[in-house]
Amino acid sequence: MKVCVLAGGVGAARFLAGLVTVTDPASVTAIVNVADDMVLHGLHISPDLDTVTYTVAGQINPETGWGLVGESWTTMGELERLGGAAWFGLGDKDLATHLYRTQRLAEGATLSGVTTELARSFGLGCRVLPVSDDPVRTRVTLGPAASGGLAGSEVGFQDWFVGMSHDEPVAALRFEGAELAAPAPGVVDAITEADVVVIAPSNPLVSIEPVLAVPGVRAAVRQRRDHVVAVSPIVGGRALKGPADRLMADLGIEPSVTGVARLYAPLAATLVVDSVDAGLADDVEGAGMRCVVTPTVMSGRPEAAALARVVIGHG
Amino acid sequence: MKVCVLAGGVGAARFLAGLVTVTDPASVTAIVNVADDMVLHGLHISPDLDTVTYTVAGQINPETGWGLVGESWTTMGELERLGGAAWFGLGDKDLATHLYRTQRLAEGATLSGVTTELARSFGLGCRVLPVSDDPVRTRVTLGPAASGGLAGSEVGFQDWFVGMSHDEPVAALRFEGAELAAPAPGVVDAITEADVVVIAPSNPLVSIEPVLAVPGVRAAVRQRRDHVVAVSPIVGGRALKGPADRLMADLGIEPSVTGVARLYAPLAATLVVDSVDAGLADDVEGAGMRCVVTPTVMSGRPEAAALARVVIGHG
Repeated sequence: MKVCVLAGGVGAARFLAGLVTVTDPASVTAIVNVADDMVLHGLHISPDLDTVTYTVAGQINPETGWGLVGESWTTMGELERLGGAAWFGLGDKDLATHLYRTQRLAEGATLSGVTTELARSFGLGCRVLPVSDDPVRTRVTLGPAASGGLAGSEVGFQDWFVGMSHDEPVAALRFEGAELAAPAPGVVDAITEADVVVIAPSNPLVSIEPVLAVPGVRAAVRQRRDHVVAVSPIVGGRALKGPADRLMADLGIEPSVTGVARLYAPLAATLVVDSVDAGLADDVEGAGMRCVVTPTVMSGRPEAAALARVVIGHG
Repeated sequence: MKVCVLAGGVGAARFLAGLVTVTDPASVTAIVNVADDMVLHGLHISPDLDTVTYTVAGQINPETGWGLVGESWTTMGELERLGGAAWFGLGDKDLATHLYRTQRLAEGATLSGVTTELARSFGLGCRVLPVSDDPVRTRVTLGPAASGGLAGSEVGFQDWFVGMSHDEPVAALRFEGAELAAPAPGVVDAITEADVVVIAPSNPLVSIEPVLAVPGVRAAVRQRRDHVVAVSPIVGGRALKGPADRLMADLGIEPSVTGVARLYAPLAATLVVDSVDAGLADDVEGAGMRCVVTPTVMSGRPEAAALARVVIGHG
């Protein structure tokens, strides 16, 4: 059974780590958001690709959800002493990934090519694809209530997400470069040929939307609607991790499984929601999606595997 | 007394570390070669600037002559595991310098501006200037006896120096970009206003030549000829460190203090040679330079200080 997963960062990565334990990893393709990517210190950093790779490899830092386990911070400490831009944490081992990627890109490799090389080095059995080899970058327009005279200004995603700890309100999002980007080789085929397409429990607005925004991807998913299963990243009205709930509210979308259902109904026949949201099943159905209720909080690989089994059983 | 030192890497750095102990550091300006610079892993690496800064700061790795003392190698080890380009050693602390420089350059800072910032962070009392803020890059044409079908091909300086351990014979050198480069702010003034201009014991062909090749620098030095003192990097017919002797022979220049004198006579009135070369003093004078004989091997700061005292006494 072929499974294709549209993926952002932590939630998607945990889901994938469970999925590869309940199905043949070789039949799994993750299509990963690249709109969080940035160049910092001259290094091409792909946070979602790395979180997926490190997590599926069992090497993620379990406390932060990003970076590598057992990491050291020698370079960052020294960079801070030099007065450098140390707001984006890069561990010593993690840095090697960014050095490798940047050098290979400079040598002419594609992002999908480098991602495949890294996945192999980390011993992954599944396929990890950036949604595009072209640059797509989320730009965030801050809301009128933003502090420090920032209201209305547009900043890079990581400036908002990490630099401002995603504390400032958001008025709008756009995905720079998306309209000119092409899906990476294999992306559309993976969606088309999958038995089940999963929309992982990732931030719908800044992880899944920029994947769908690459021309051809949204249409390919919509064509498979009957076999598309989305997992709600909102549980009991809150995001398990990250700012999805506040971001949805900022942009006029109800931060609930019902709000998620309204977003995903055109793309997916089924929404998997957590048991705490069982009472909203009717609302989800009312929004046009079949509702499956099951525990969705992935505290560890066993919970992730159980969720993955339910999800692929409904595709 | 103002002293201006034309500098390459290790030899110049050791000389400067001695010099700042025998004269007011605030009156010392090092004008440093940038033709060994390169971009690797997306990082702007300036080997000679870093060697000078680290050495004067007392933080150089004394065993290698490059990199920082007490360094760790976590990132490099991981990069090697990933199959990355690990031929150019970058320690974890050293990496912070390259990250800092690269990010500041991307933000619009000049190389001389960044170098000043780094010198301040490392607590330097003297001024360190790259000879130019513009890119100058040494390109090496390999000689007919080069191995592996490489004869006649042109490679980057570090590919030859580090990648090939400077083992391959050299047919020609050129300094790409030099003719379009401008001296960094302060460079020509430092030469013009110095009481003594020193040509440090650096490789004449790949460290000093690309400094002189920046338009305006050679002329400024020549105008100060009476106050220019060169220190021979060749001692007893051999380079103390690096390939200067073989490079000189490859390019038809006698690898001796006499050969050095013939190179530097148009620019410097005085050549300081090591005691082992006392017998060649007449040859040096014959080549048109005053010859000063003194111990020049800088095993430590005291020896470097003694040499510096002799050198500035003859400017």
